[in-house]
Amino acid sequence: MTINAQRKLYDLAGADPDRRFSPYCWRTRLALAHKDLPVETIPWRFTEKEAIARSGQHRVPVLLDGETVVWDSWTIATYLEDTYGDGRSLFGGAGGRSAIFFINNWADSVLLPGIARLIVVDVWAHLHDKDRAYFRETREKIFGMSLEQVCADRETSVEAFRMGLRPLQRMLAQQPFFGGSSANYGDYIVFGGFQWARCTSRFQLLAEGDPIAAWFERILDLFGGLARAAPSEWPV
Amino acid sequence: MTINAQRKLYDLAGADPDRRFSPYCWRTRLALAHKDLPVETIPWRFTEKEAIARSGQHRVPVLLDGETVVWDSWTIATYLEDTYGDGRSLFGGAGGRSAIFFINNWADSVLLPGIARLIVVDVWAHLHDKDRAYFRETREKIFGMSLEQVCADRETSVEAFRMGLRPLQRMLAQQPFFGGSSANYGDYIVFGGFQWARCTSRFQLLAEGDPIAAWFERILDLFGGLARAAPSEWPV
Repeated sequence: MTINAQRKLYDLAGADPDRRFSPYCWRTRLALAHKDLPVETIPWRFTEKEAIARSGQHRVPVLLDGETVVWDSWTIATYLEDTYGDGRSLFGGAGGRSAIFFINNWADSVLLPGIARLIVVDVWAHLHDKDRAYFRETREKIFGMSLEQVCADRETSVEAFRMGLRPLQRMLAQQPFFGGSSANYGDYIVFGGFQWARCTSRFQLLAEGDPIAAWFERILDLFGGLARAAPSEWPV
Repeated sequence: MTINAQRKLYDLAGADPDRRFSPYCWRTRLALAHKDLPVETIPWRFTEKEAIARSGQHRVPVLLDGETVVWDSWTIATYLEDTYGDGRSLFGGAGGRSAIFFINNWADSVLLPGIARLIVVDVWAHLHDKDRAYFRETREKIFGMSLEQVCADRETSVEAFRMGLRPLQRMLAQQPFFGGSSANYGDYIVFGGFQWARCTSRFQLLAEGDPIAAWFERILDLFGGLARAAPSEWPV
């Protein structure tokens, strides 16, 4: 394994530089911790496109690993697994990697859009002033309505969101992690979505007693409480 | 590996004993073929509870492997993987098994209920006379309406169903199978749902050009066209 003191991660931040809430960046932070790879995180805002221009695109996470520049959370995870193969496995083998890629796509196309509809107005409230107009304009174009309208009916629309969590709830009734008896990258993918909410919004995503809450706590505890230490909007 | 001429599978059938349409039984049939394990399938109808009573429950698939009785498609898959470990792996390792269990739960709680709402009236039409009243009564209780009402708006409700397929469509844009470069049990789980529709209904689940159709054809081709040979309602 290469020990690399030059490992840096551009990590989305709010007005408070310590408030890190990107669901994709959380995947990468936990993947690095899983591999026991130290990293310096650099707070980054949506409008700081120049800072990551060398990656050839304009979104985070962007990982600088020595001279190597890697972006996109999935690409970073596969890079870490292949480069640091003697560390603990993120996927648990070839079958894990390909199946977890489905989980990645489930999270990106079902879970995250579902959470966004419930918290996007609260995310906006945490942004740095220089990001607010950009974020509002791009997201309102996607939703076709104001951020306030997106979240206006969330007390009722949360019910449909919770129905979509059944695959996760059913899995957790039989095994404690996506990774089986211990967490792996499948867990970090899905955790990122809930951590995004925890770090930006007091809106209650889960019904009382949902087994997802206990699983989420187990991930918060990993790596010396790495994710738990992040500034949060949820009660401890 | 034990070669066992006494391997039998109770497999749901319609009025025509060759019409086998259970999504769960298809998972098991492809899992057995993947492991190169010959099996005699026994046509079974919903109301033939006595025939499988020795399994201690009343649903198929039920596998008789010599003296061993195994039921529930997931339990059968793990039994086959553990018992016939020198055959081709169904999961691709421990990480595959635990991640594919999420896929199993996604299929059971999202995909199959979504397909059921679109085809349940056509499934009923294929049943043996002795099963029809039982099936209608139990399913209408679940849906809270007649089977005809469940499917009445399917030309419009199919749009929401197709939205729920995005994780699968996105995955297939990057890799040809759940198993990566070749099929594994993750594929068979999801295939079973579409094969259930293919064997019972002419309703078009997928939009024209959906990449899922090409993936489905690839699974139909496996094992000498095992699943393609089944009596079907879809154009060849």
